[in-house]
Amino acid sequence: MTVKIGLVGTGTVGGGCLDILTNHAEDFKRNFGADIQLAGVCSREPERAAEYGVSDLFTEDYHDLLNNPEIDVIIELIGGTGIAKDVIMGALEAGKHVVTANKAVMASYGEEVFAAAAQKGLQVFFGASVGGGIPIIGPMRHSLIANQVTKIMGIVNGTTNFMLSRMNDDGLSYDAALKEAQDLGYAEADPTADVDGFDAAAKIAILASLAFHTDVRMADVYTEGIRNLNPLDFATAKSMGYAVKLVAHANLTDDGVFVRVHPTMLPLEHQMASVNGVFNAIYVVGDAVGQTMFFGEGAGAGPAASAVMGDVVELARRLELGIPEDCGSPVRQQLPLVPMDNLSTKYYIRFKVKDRPGVLAASAAEFSKAGVSVKSVSQRGNSKRDDVNLVFVTHTAKESDIRAAIKAILALDNVVTGGFPAVIRVEE
Amino acid sequence: MTVKIGLVGTGTVGGGCLDILTNHAEDFKRNFGADIQLAGVCSREPERAAEYGVSDLFTEDYHDLLNNPEIDVIIELIGGTGIAKDVIMGALEAGKHVVTANKAVMASYGEEVFAAAAQKGLQVFFGASVGGGIPIIGPMRHSLIANQVTKIMGIVNGTTNFMLSRMNDDGLSYDAALKEAQDLGYAEADPTADVDGFDAAAKIAILASLAFHTDVRMADVYTEGIRNLNPLDFATAKSMGYAVKLVAHANLTDDGVFVRVHPTMLPLEHQMASVNGVFNAIYVVGDAVGQTMFFGEGAGAGPAASAVMGDVVELARRLELGIPEDCGSPVRQQLPLVPMDNLSTKYYIRFKVKDRPGVLAASAAEFSKAGVSVKSVSQRGNSKRDDVNLVFVTHTAKESDIRAAIKAILALDNVVTGGFPAVIRVEE
Repeated sequence: MTVKIGLVGTGTVGGGCLDILTNHAEDFKRNFGADIQLAGVCSREPERAAEYGVSDLFTEDYHDLLNNPEIDVIIELIGGTGIAKDVIMGALEAGKHVVTANKAVMASYGEEVFAAAAQKGLQVFFGASVGGGIPIIGPMRHSLIANQVTKIMGIVNGTTNFMLSRMNDDGLSYDAALKEAQDLGYAEADPTADVDGFDAAAKIAILASLAFHTDVRMADVYTEGIRNLNPLDFATAKSMGYAVKLVAHANLTDDGVFVRVHPTMLPLEHQMASVNGVFNAIYVVGDAVGQTMFFGEGAGAGPAASAVMGDVVELARRLELGIPEDCGSPVRQQLPLVPMDNLSTKYYIRFKVKDRPGVLAASAAEFSKAGVSVKSVSQRGNSKRDDVNLVFVTHTAKESDIRAAIKAILALDNVVTGGFPAVIRVEE
Repeated sequence: MTVKIGLVGTGTVGGGCLDILTNHAEDFKRNFGADIQLAGVCSREPERAAEYGVSDLFTEDYHDLLNNPEIDVIIELIGGTGIAKDVIMGALEAGKHVVTANKAVMASYGEEVFAAAAQKGLQVFFGASVGGGIPIIGPMRHSLIANQVTKIMGIVNGTTNFMLSRMNDDGLSYDAALKEAQDLGYAEADPTADVDGFDAAAKIAILASLAFHTDVRMADVYTEGIRNLNPLDFATAKSMGYAVKLVAHANLTDDGVFVRVHPTMLPLEHQMASVNGVFNAIYVVGDAVGQTMFFGEGAGAGPAASAVMGDVVELARRLELGIPEDCGSPVRQQLPLVPMDNLSTKYYIRFKVKDRPGVLAASAAEFSKAGVSVKSVSQRGNSKRDDVNLVFVTHTAKESDIRAAIKAILALDNVVTGGFPAVIRVEE
């Protein structure tokens, strides 16, 4: 089957796709009967098309690809929810299948996209939207479908995992780790999407929708990032037997679906605790399969392109077989979302305070007033500096009580506000 | 779509399938439009059918299921290559799709099975044949298809991984670890298939065929088991920075496909090194995706049934869509098999010798004569006993040279033969 593709976006991932096509087009024909031909390339960088020797197929206007009747599949790789969404919806409107790596569109407008595709009998593949090259969307839609998935934990943002690894292993400050990530090209100049957890929120929204067959959107995900963490947090966690990771959680509870992203202490013996650097991992628990984990590189030209082109070849194979539509929207029900206030877990909380008598006692008293049982409290920091750290570890407590205590403590004299405290929730 | 299934085999996995059907039949309808109905159960244990309340569907003759025109899909869960193969081939002959967990049949007669299925336009699913509940067959056939897979390492036998974990963590002898595995139901009374690596060999043959699109059979896999290992090996490995695992390897080399199963030292920092107990993991390297790993429970009622019933639901969904045949045989070429003699790696080799002067020197001389460069040699063991251990660690050497040296050393005076030496190959 000959399938003609139009590529929109020639950045890192787009380049990786062109590399794969160059290297493996013959393999795809022989192994899967899929003759994948590039029929158009669109971006704002004609020099990238030249670099790959496809200037004759280049345009700066994506409408040229949508209007090209030869093109069967549009690959959308520009990201974001602006033009990217127009490209996706426009492609479906024009009767073209879509392969996208766009987590933001899928996590915010997935149902709209699926509905448009269903109306036209078209397919939308988005395997690269979560976990880069790690096969996770496929297993969630196929291999694991005999399970009721009850729990997902994902280290799904390579930028922050790299930074946390550097802070943990080498004692770098947040700022130094961020600068290094930016210098290495792992973090954007504006790192908000990564460090504040929004990228992870989009990914867990997609996974939760697939797992629980309910519509979970990025905006539904409670999100805290890693800006408040410092090397002391990692050292303390290690002494407690934990590693600190930015974890995206999705749980199926009796009260509904609970989705959240925040720094999390994982027991050192947990398989996820040793996932370091730019690697990603998604841990999935199902009622039959038990614990599973999917590990790999979550970003970069090769891994993401592996997922995109895997989708393209799969789509081509299905078109060959005349398959109408296989998955589409996973949503079959609408489950309630559990509010963050309902969380019940152990907490690590580090305040920054002025080194004055009474601060520790006054802070501890506020936890007590809020009904939170404190397991340990210690003052840590350089005695030569005026600011010191006050580290609390609680017994299991309710999020709402913790918030009340934090609010009261931040109102105390000699407690530093402005971004603090650092809060890490503990996964047992 | 209503799909009627006939279950052959009501052991652990068969029971797990009946549990899943009981718990999730309604979910399958709602989420995937798949109405899975049990239409027949066959085994030698009528009491198992009674246990699950399906005595009315029970027969001791599998032909009753093959001859039942209502049944669309036969689930074969009896294992082995005798009757199981007859059931699979008979089901295809009778025009029924097949879902099987049978690694032995797929690893020895896969091409025959695929050919019979293709002739009748039927489908064969075998997701549970490798890694129990871990989704690995699906990703190899779908998500990862844009890659040239170059390397697979699998910890694919839970029984031996449990035993090795106990020997490593708690210093158990091989015999004690085996007895415990048998007591816990992890190992058979005759443990040969597990401890001699044949189970792992079947699994890596299946994975290699999928990865390299060439016909690799169980008999093509060079196989060594774990009988020769003892706690000293684990302690020495740890001091060298390695964990000892029974690893199934498949590599794509310039000379062809290299498949082998043997005890392997993995660097402690490798993601596979911390896969302990009955857990399995499959590590896959692709040219685009880089390193990936799939982790989970490799055996047991729930995990294996998760894979089997996942296949059943997937099959039902495809039948609903009128899909003819999606994958079938992966074989598209015949690559040469690399003989074991061509291996080049570092070796850990432990001989048992009589505690006599000159044995160490004479043994070392044989390595030298064979052209093998020895990195270290040490005598280990209880000086009160006559038998001591002589542990060699080599620099990178050729397997054929190692074999020559071992043969010569075993012919020396005061070297104990009969099962020895213990050989562990080192993965860098």
